[in-house]
Amino acid sequence: MSNLTVGIVGAGRIGQLHADNIISSAKMTLKALADIDVSHLAGTRFSDCVPVITTDTEALFNDPEIDAVFICTSTDTHCHFIKKAAVAGKHIFCEKPISFNINETNEVLQIVKDAGVKMQIGFNRRYDKHFKHLRDMIKAGKIGQPHIIKITSRDPETPPEEYIKRSGGMFMDMTIHDFDMVRYLASSEVKQVFVATANLIDEKFARNEDVDTAIINLTFEDGSLAVIDNSRQAVYGYDQRIEAFGDKGVVTVDNEQKTNVQISTKETVTIDHPKYFFLDRYKDAFVTEINHFAASIIDGTPLLCTGEDGLEAQRLALAARLSWKENRPVLLSEIENDVKMGVTK
Amino acid sequence: MSNLTVGIVGAGRIGQLHADNIISSAKMTLKALADIDVSHLAGTRFSDCVPVITTDTEALFNDPEIDAVFICTSTDTHCHFIKKAAVAGKHIFCEKPISFNINETNEVLQIVKDAGVKMQIGFNRRYDKHFKHLRDMIKAGKIGQPHIIKITSRDPETPPEEYIKRSGGMFMDMTIHDFDMVRYLASSEVKQVFVATANLIDEKFARNEDVDTAIINLTFEDGSLAVIDNSRQAVYGYDQRIEAFGDKGVVTVDNEQKTNVQISTKETVTIDHPKYFFLDRYKDAFVTEINHFAASIIDGTPLLCTGEDGLEAQRLALAARLSWKENRPVLLSEIENDVKMGVTK
Amino acid sequence: MSNLTVGIVGAGRIGQLHADNIISSAKMTLKALADIDVSHLAGTRFSDCVPVITTDTEALFNDPEIDAVFICTSTDTHCHFIKKAAVAGKHIFCEKPISFNINETNEVLQIVKDAGVKMQIGFNRRYDKHFKHLRDMIKAGKIGQPHIIKITSRDPETPPEEYIKRSGGMFMDMTIHDFDMVRYLASSEVKQVFVATANLIDEKFARNEDVDTAIINLTFEDGSLAVIDNSRQAVYGYDQRIEAFGDKGVVTVDNEQKTNVQISTKETVTIDHPKYFFLDRYKDAFVTEINHFAASIIDGTPLLCTGEDGLEAQRLALAARLSWKENRPVLLSEIENDVKMGVTK
Amino acid sequence: MSNLTVGIVGAGRIGQLHADNIISSAKMTLKALADIDVSHLAGTRFSDCVPVITTDTEALFNDPEIDAVFICTSTDTHCHFIKKAAVAGKHIFCEKPISFNINETNEVLQIVKDAGVKMQIGFNRRYDKHFKHLRDMIKAGKIGQPHIIKITSRDPETPPEEYIKRSGGMFMDMTIHDFDMVRYLASSEVKQVFVATANLIDEKFARNEDVDTAIINLTFEDGSLAVIDNSRQAVYGYDQRIEAFGDKGVVTVDNEQKTNVQISTKETVTIDHPKYFFLDRYKDAFVTEINHFAASIIDGTPLLCTGEDGLEAQRLALAARLSWKENRPVLLSEIENDVKMGVTK
Repeated sequence: MSNLTVGIVGAGRIGQLHADNIISSAKMTLKALADIDVSHLAGTRFSDCVPVITTDTEALFNDPEIDAVFICTSTDTHCHFIKKAAVAGKHIFCEKPISFNINETNEVLQIVKDAGVKMQIGFNRRYDKHFKHLRDMIKAGKIGQPHIIKITSRDPETPPEEYIKRSGGMFMDMTIHDFDMVRYLASSEVKQVFVATANLIDEKFARNEDVDTAIINLTFEDGSLAVIDNSRQAVYGYDQRIEAFGDKGVVTVDNEQKTNVQISTKETVTIDHPKYFFLDRYKDAFVTEINHFAASIIDGTPLLCTGEDGLEAQRLALAARLSWKENRPVLLSEIENDVKMGVTK
Repeated sequence: MSNLTVGIVGAGRIGQLHADNIISSAKMTLKALADIDVSHLAGTRFSDCVPVITTDTEALFNDPEIDAVFICTSTDTHCHFIKKAAVAGKHIFCEKPISFNINETNEVLQIVKDAGVKMQIGFNRRYDKHFKHLRDMIKAGKIGQPHIIKITSRDPETPPEEYIKRSGGMFMDMTIHDFDMVRYLASSEVKQVFVATANLIDEKFARNEDVDTAIINLTFEDGSLAVIDNSRQAVYGYDQRIEAFGDKGVVTVDNEQKTNVQISTKETVTIDHPKYFFLDRYKDAFVTEINHFAASIIDGTPLLCTGEDGLEAQRLALAARLSWKENRPVLLSEIENDVKMGVTK
Repeated sequence: MSNLTVGIVGAGRIGQLHADNIISSAKMTLKALADIDVSHLAGTRFSDCVPVITTDTEALFNDPEIDAVFICTSTDTHCHFIKKAAVAGKHIFCEKPISFNINETNEVLQIVKDAGVKMQIGFNRRYDKHFKHLRDMIKAGKIGQPHIIKITSRDPETPPEEYIKRSGGMFMDMTIHDFDMVRYLASSEVKQVFVATANLIDEKFARNEDVDTAIINLTFEDGSLAVIDNSRQAVYGYDQRIEAFGDKGVVTVDNEQKTNVQISTKETVTIDHPKYFFLDRYKDAFVTEINHFAASIIDGTPLLCTGEDGLEAQRLALAARLSWKENRPVLLSEIENDVKMGVTK
Repeated sequence: MSNLTVGIVGAGRIGQLHADNIISSAKMTLKALADIDVSHLAGTRFSDCVPVITTDTEALFNDPEIDAVFICTSTDTHCHFIKKAAVAGKHIFCEKPISFNINETNEVLQIVKDAGVKMQIGFNRRYDKHFKHLRDMIKAGKIGQPHIIKITSRDPETPPEEYIKRSGGMFMDMTIHDFDMVRYLASSEVKQVFVATANLIDEKFARNEDVDTAIINLTFEDGSLAVIDNSRQAVYGYDQRIEAFGDKGVVTVDNEQKTNVQISTKETVTIDHPKYFFLDRYKDAFVTEINHFAASIIDGTPLLCTGEDGLEAQRLALAARLSWKENRPVLLSEIENDVKMGVTK
């Protein structure tokens, strides 16, 4: 196979982003775009370039020409579509998180495995050139044995309340990216999670049994440590920084600024803001991500982010939630199934 | 007109770059790609996407569907193709410099004017987001009245000797970008040029009556100053920095680094290199540049870089050459025609 | 009083540092320097400049000319000398921590209070120009209401095992500076402490029932959060960074580099290391610190770091220790007396 | 000799600065401070610490205990005092420039040589830790063979008109520091000077036949280049940057900022200003400078900045002046004596 024919279910913001990048990719052809409503796509470039735009998602899974499916719908429907795709023998790119509960995720991982198709989870930051280079430095031994990994991850502004309701909570919706990044960088799995949380930004979070600010402590199996700090609102821009400290040194990634312009006057010396929006900050990472997915199918290169990675990030999010609820350190081994955790949402 | 149909003459490195960007642009359709030899395009994505690939450049100018022509051939053929395009009523995007001599440039500018077509010169750096923002700050009065403009512009490695022979010399080939940038930023035209030059890098420059290192002093009509420093070889990467100093402050643009990764060890603290190659450093600027050209034709927005801008940069390059040859400050008013300058190359 | 006459007990590294700065200060005269052994001071500039160098510490407290005493001995003798000074009516500058247990500290605070003398604790970082400016920005409301305070505090190399034995443990010896800094910056007192710890650097720490790496989570009474990360060994230098994030912005202090030199070659781009040693990094802060102490006595300006500040930092260190021992979040209210904590070291 | 006894002539700003540093120096004792008027020193710390404060400058040169004299008077009296000191067999530290004309400087250099005393010229920037480190990198071959040296040197505000009148002009007063720095860094002597100048800041410069803005091009004997840009008024602070570019790389020194504080809000991201005043920026360099002078006498270490260095900087200033007056490149070899230059000021 030299080129992958793909379909997308879910034509919201992230679905359209992937659609755009697939159209521009030399490795993929976008054949179909399906959603429960596609009226918003009329008159767009998609209506010119995509042969099939439909509300009939079945058509997509039944199309023998389609090699792979991108699942870009809301989280509560991910497992449904993963099953459909796996059964139809189609490779799967699924947005994060796989689901909100462990049992359901375990079930679809087994189905995917049985079907023998590939599944990549949409942790786009793994493909960011800065973080990729930072990881390469760690793996090359430049900082020796990692002792402390630090992630600062703050959104520029709060999501709408409707989004919060369906998000699964901050740990599942936002920190999950950082949990995945920690695992991507660390040389050991997480053993224990403790979170300190706060509601300082907007009452809409508390109203929906959620937090808006958190510091998450992680202890790894090998004894090393990590810490993540999250905020739902960094008014100065999208704040995405990472630091890995070890016995031979430290490696850091600072924010990308909008421009390198610096202005010095009598009153102030100003530099530019960090990029404000995740689509801008991770623009190139989203492109690399899907081309990596295509390559793994076309050339057989290994996936960089598997279903199991999705499961582990989800377990960390659930452990964080439990630590928050009970104000105690939680062992990741406690997060084996949903009943035990009492997390039934 | 909602979309521009374009052809390209010249399918070398820069021609292919523009071809790629035109294909990805929502504002343009690439109908034809012509060169004296097109065999190197076989099996590329261009052979899939471009309807006409031909060695018959006439076909391109005769095609009534083609609205605009990109001239990406070697400099000595620019004026020939500009004339053809103007006579055929096609809008023109021409790479820099327009030509190596003033008389020829003056002649084609008149022909373009008479034909009533638009012509944009390929000074891509005007569209760089950093330099654009720096200019906006100047124009907004943030640094008050400009007193000193400083440009550092150094290539990462020397061009092949064959290229040097046809380049018109460092001032015409390389500094010409900086001359254009100075004019883009300054609020006054250049009055006097003085250059100090050196041959320190490679004998191939001296062998071809060229220099490899230079510091160029400019005095503007309003009394303010500028200085450009050039080198044909900055081994650490493509060095592109600008500073504008005025009575209310200073604004600077530093290099774009490959990544924001910083590594600190017992031995060293290292950051990443500047981007190495102009195609990487100005990747986005090349896209913005052609979309601006398309918009100026479709929507009638003013051109940001006209044929007259091309002429003025060329005059500055010739003044620099004269200053070098005679080791004296040269008034720009001396550069009126080629005979006077004795520059006949 | 226009000038303070002072004596120092303890002529080790920190005692000599203060002696040097007092000699250079226009506000103070150093009359006496006492230690159990003063043979190492023979032939130094102190033997020229200090009238009394003695092993008789009593002489210092009995000297009616001495207005204030600097206590620079080992921690286990601090309270003994504080009592002597207070009873003798002398103002006190005492190095941190006041003691290793709460009861003892409470007792001497009462004695100092009853004696009506001033006591300043040696948290030198409060006087660092960078951190002072960061605090001023917070207090001026530049970042609005603080949500997250982050401190990175890592020593360049591990102390000798003999020092570790007498240090009171990492939290009492090293983190105590960060605890004080957090209180200096925050607008609320700490409510809860949780620590994640590790022994990754050297077995000598575990041998002495100590840790070498830690991440300390703090929750304030007002709901906001802080996190400190400590390491006993940052091979690239003394790593001292602070960040305060609030609803209106973020303010950061990065490390001081040895020089501003940056070198870019084909192979690497290197900048200089952070300053390596605390005496170098906080050189000016140590000077400001003692002049502030002198001014508070001479001019009656308020102390910037009182005995109560010393007590609170000590309570935080003990809470951290308890959290480490019991792997649970500890309320600061639990740290009221030593019996309750079972910390009798 | 283990300690140097020194006297100072000239108790203005720079004289008092050196007095302060000498008092704090372990290598020197300040015995006498002389000026035509010393009334402003009454009640200062100098009246406590300096045994002799006098208007009788002769007393200073006649005092057999005084080993060395610091000449901190106005430039027009330097040579007078240099002669006196040399004849009296005293070593000499003289502020820059030695004089305003070459013949006079040549004469005193000979007298100093004949007397066999040491003379150091006060080019303080040679002792700045940043520039020193930059130079060490060059001398260690880190950038290979230097091709371009760039100095940005801008004062924060203009001097009073009375100062301008006596300053010898911008090249002699201000650029002279940069001329010396160029020589300190370069591996070859200057061959040719060309300046482009402007009067953009204040009419008081033109009124006194002076300029306020300049770009100075230097060509070295070995063919390499340098450029200095000067302004009498950088409203954002004292701007002191250097860059040395060679065939193996580039080394830069950026400004020292007041603090490392950075504040990011919705509106702006601001960092701190460069240090504003030369006494603040070069505070440590002034200390190192005089201790180096003392060491060269006590230990016989070579001087880092000799009378010949003072002469060469002066010649460069005169060449710059001539280039300005005649708007042409000037060979340094033209600057042999004052008659030839027609500079008789």
